[in-house]
Parts: sequence; structure tokens; C-alpha cells
Amino acid sequence: MRVAELAKVITIRVAVDSALAADMLAAAAGRAGVTVGILVDIDVGFHRTGVQTPKESLELARHVADTRGLRLDGIMIYPGHVLGPPQRQGPMLWEVGQRLGEAVAAWRSRGLEPRIISGGSTPTAPMSNLVPHLTEIRPGTYIFNDYNTILSGQCTLANCAARVACTVISSAVPGKVVLDAGSKALGSDRAAIDPDANGYGLLVDYPGARVVRLSEEHGEVDVSRCERAPALGERVYLVPNHICPCINLHDRAWLILPDGAASRVNIDARGCLS
Amino acid sequence: MRVAELAKVITIRVAVDSALAADMLAAAAGRAGVTVGILVDIDVGFHRTGVQTPKESLELARHVADTRGLRLDGIMIYPGHVLGPPQRQGPMLWEVGQRLGEAVAAWRSRGLEPRIISGGSTPTAPMSNLVPHLTEIRPGTYIFNDYNTILSGQCTLANCAARVACTVISSAVPGKVVLDAGSKALGSDRAAIDPDANGYGLLVDYPGARVVRLSEEHGEVDVSRCERAPALGERVYLVPNHICPCINLHDRAWLILPDGAASRVNIDARGCLS
Repeated sequence: MRVAELAKVITIRVAVDSALAADMLAAAAGRAGVTVGILVDIDVGFHRTGVQTPKESLELARHVADTRGLRLDGIMIYPGHVLGPPQRQGPMLWEVGQRLGEAVAAWRSRGLEPRIISGGSTPTAPMSNLVPHLTEIRPGTYIFNDYNTILSGQCTLANCAARVACTVISSAVPGKVVLDAGSKALGSDRAAIDPDANGYGLLVDYPGARVVRLSEEHGEVDVSRCERAPALGERVYLVPNHICPCINLHDRAWLILPDGAASRVNIDARGCLS
Repeated sequence: MRVAELAKVITIRVAVDSALAADMLAAAAGRAGVTVGILVDIDVGFHRTGVQTPKESLELARHVADTRGLRLDGIMIYPGHVLGPPQRQGPMLWEVGQRLGEAVAAWRSRGLEPRIISGGSTPTAPMSNLVPHLTEIRPGTYIFNDYNTILSGQCTLANCAARVACTVISSAVPGKVVLDAGSKALGSDRAAIDPDANGYGLLVDYPGARVVRLSEEHGEVDVSRCERAPALGERVYLVPNHICPCINLHDRAWLILPDGAASRVNIDARGCLS
């Protein structure tokens, strides 16, 4: 198993929510003669993965602590259900802290110390102080930001570091321009907030424009409410709804350096699915 | 321009809906000493690209015919608005044929013959006979088919040639299993028909399962209505909503040969965006 091979050269930790996953990792660790760090994944409200109760988290922690080849490192949470402006996250993050605190108390009552308590998410990053116990956070989107983080009140366009450069390839249909960027360049993620109104990204410099439909190679922009529309052949810039899967579609990007020079970078981890 | 370079070694045709695009191609063709074939893109109801009236199509055709470096080859249409079961497409395809016929008549009245009349689309492919004048069709999805072509009554699961192989990595949240395939493996395209009910793909062999939410690396499946649910660690197979952007996310695929042997194929054109 690849994880065990990696554990030979670096410290690696895996979040698990089942004894089966822990046992599979332990078997691979045993074959490779390594130790794999384990974080117990606890569901704090997103309801995607994670054990459900303090009792279950304690049982899994004890199982990991008692299994050769594994090292019980702590707890992992992902509060993906907490969106919206930071100043409105207080009540939901209080709940997250409660659920986490119950698990930590259960562990400590049996002498288990979660040395690492890993939190998450770009939306909650600035309010991480509201969740007691955290020792690390894992925001990702914030490196670039995107239309979703603008829409949810976490940043402004000035904080968005990435753009998709597009060209207007058609203006034949009244009220519309068409870009040479579709779902294969932008991704099809809908806007996290009010998707019908917000479309598939923010066209920079054209207030009122809405990216209303994506085909694979076409992005259709409703410009009927724009004071001025981009011209046929014009180069325009788009901030995608969700920068993470967007970046994953591209083999290369251009990094604009502080002096204005452009440097091509390869997106090495793109598509590393298997 | 890359098109002009390609025209040195192969016959290449470009669909255009503006004199500007035609002139840019002509300039590149002139510099490269080649001729580029042109199809005039006519909007037959999808309202994405394409000139709007027979008069506009004639004007653009005459412009192309009069421009050095270009060769007027014919007409391109894309009836992307015609979905649903083939047997119900008659009235809409009749409209498509009407719009196309008016353009052809306008061209012929001025002595211009559209030698190629290129139609389109997987949904309309079996009913192409209902559109007079077509000399070629361009179905794409039909090579594999997908959940969208099942949902719209164009095929059954038995006609779907591609699967995404996934593993159940979590069953900790009641009523749900989580796959190791999210938006970076499947694409985020919603179902073309009744997207809220149909989710993000069809989980093969588990009637009643619904892929209700994708994160980048997770696919959450509601199994609360399944008689039996896939087990933790089980390998399962998913037919994505839209196979075209899905394939575009993968560097490699496995081709299952008639004798059952598997052969790895590289997806060479994936991500050829620039």
C-alpha cells in the first residue's frame, strides 16, 4: 500500500473513521516495517465521514492505540457545513467545539491524549479561535480564493489571486457573449450560495455579466444587464466558482511575479487519482 | 496560428459565426500559405453560438467565399436544445430543419452551395433523418453513453460502456456510504433531467442509491432507500452523469477487451486547453 511506502521516508498521518481502515493500514505498515500515524475522524456536523459519538471515537482510538504498526496521533474534524461570513459563524462553531470537546473529554477519561487536533476549511479559518482544542487548521481555497469565497462574504475580488484568461469567441446571439472556456476549463461546480442567480463564475470588469451556461468548450455570458459588454475577440478574465477543481483541470498556469513578469508553473499534482 | 499550421498537413475546417473570426483565420492562412475550410455556424435553437438569420448566414458565406485563404465548405449546426427520448424529438427537429432549410435556400439563391452540412449531438443522432440537408452528424457522448443518456431515454445501462471504479471508504454516517471519487474523478455536472432527484451519477448494482453530494475527493451516497447497501471497503462502479468531462479528468483508463483482459490506455487529449 502506497501509504506504508511513504511512511518509510516521511511522517504520514491518515484520518480514519473505521476499525477496518485502521486494520488495513496496520497490515500494510506491518509488511513495510513502518508506523503510520492515525487521526480519528469525528463528524462535527457536515455528515460526510467521521464517527458519530464520543463513545465511538473512544473505541476507535483505543483500537488504534492497541494495534501494532499504528500510532494514535489525535483527532481530525472537517466543519464543511459552516459557511457564510465569519461574523455569523459563532453559533455553529460553538456546536462544533461542543462535539469536539465531548470526544476529547472521553479520550482523556481513559488516559488517551489527542496530541494533534486538526480542524479545517477556508470559511472557518479566521474564526478558528472559537473552536477550543484545535492544534492545526487546514484551509485550502484561501490560497487563491474564488467566487464562492467572495459570495459567502469571506473576501473581496481584491483577495482573489487566480483568474482564468478567456477570449470572447462569439457575440452572434443577442444579449450574450461566448467565451472559449467551458466546463473543461472552469469546472461545473455551481455557486455555493444562490446558484441560479450567480452562475459559473465572476467575469472581472463587467458588472452585471452572468456566466449562465457551460458546455464543455463554451461559457455563455448573459450581458443583457451590462452597461457595456466585452467585444468579440477581447481577452477577458474570470474568477471561477471553485478554484480547487478548476486548477485540477490545467496542466500549467502562469504565475505573475511582483515585477509583472510571467513565469510558467506546472501543476504537478493535477489528476493524481491513481 | 495553430489552425494554419495544421492546415499544412491535414484538411481542417473551422465553424465561425463572425466576419472577424473569418478574417483572423484568413490572415493566419495567408501567412502560412494555406487554405482553411470554413463552415458557417447557424443557430438552430440552442442559442449558444451561430448567426441568427438566413440573411446573416448568406452575408457571412459571401464574405468567406470572397476572402483569400478561406474555402467556403458549408454549414454547421448544433441542436443542443433537443433532448429527451428520440420518439419525442419530432416537432423540435422539424423546427431545426426549417431554420436550416431557409439558410440553404438563401445560399442557393445566390449560387452558393453548402457542400457540407454538419449536424450534431448524441440525443438527436438516431433521428437525424428528420433534418433534411444534413451530410454529416457529430454525436460524441454516444461512444460511451452516461447517466444523462439513460435518464433522457436514449439508452439503457446495458449500452453504457464506461464506469468509474470506486471504493467505499466510509459508512460511519447513518444512511450513507462515502466513495473515494468526488468532483475531481467524476466532474460536477448535474443531471440534465431532474438534477435534484438524480444526483451525481448512477451507482451500478444498488437500486435506490443516490449520489447526493460531491466534495473534491468524496462522493456521498444516500443508501437509506436501498434494500442492501455496499459494504465498507467494497469496490463499486459508477456511471457518471456526463462522461465527456469525466474522461477529461483522468490521465489513463482501463479498456476491458472482449476476452476479459484489461489494457491500460492513455487519454492523450485530456486537458489540451492551450
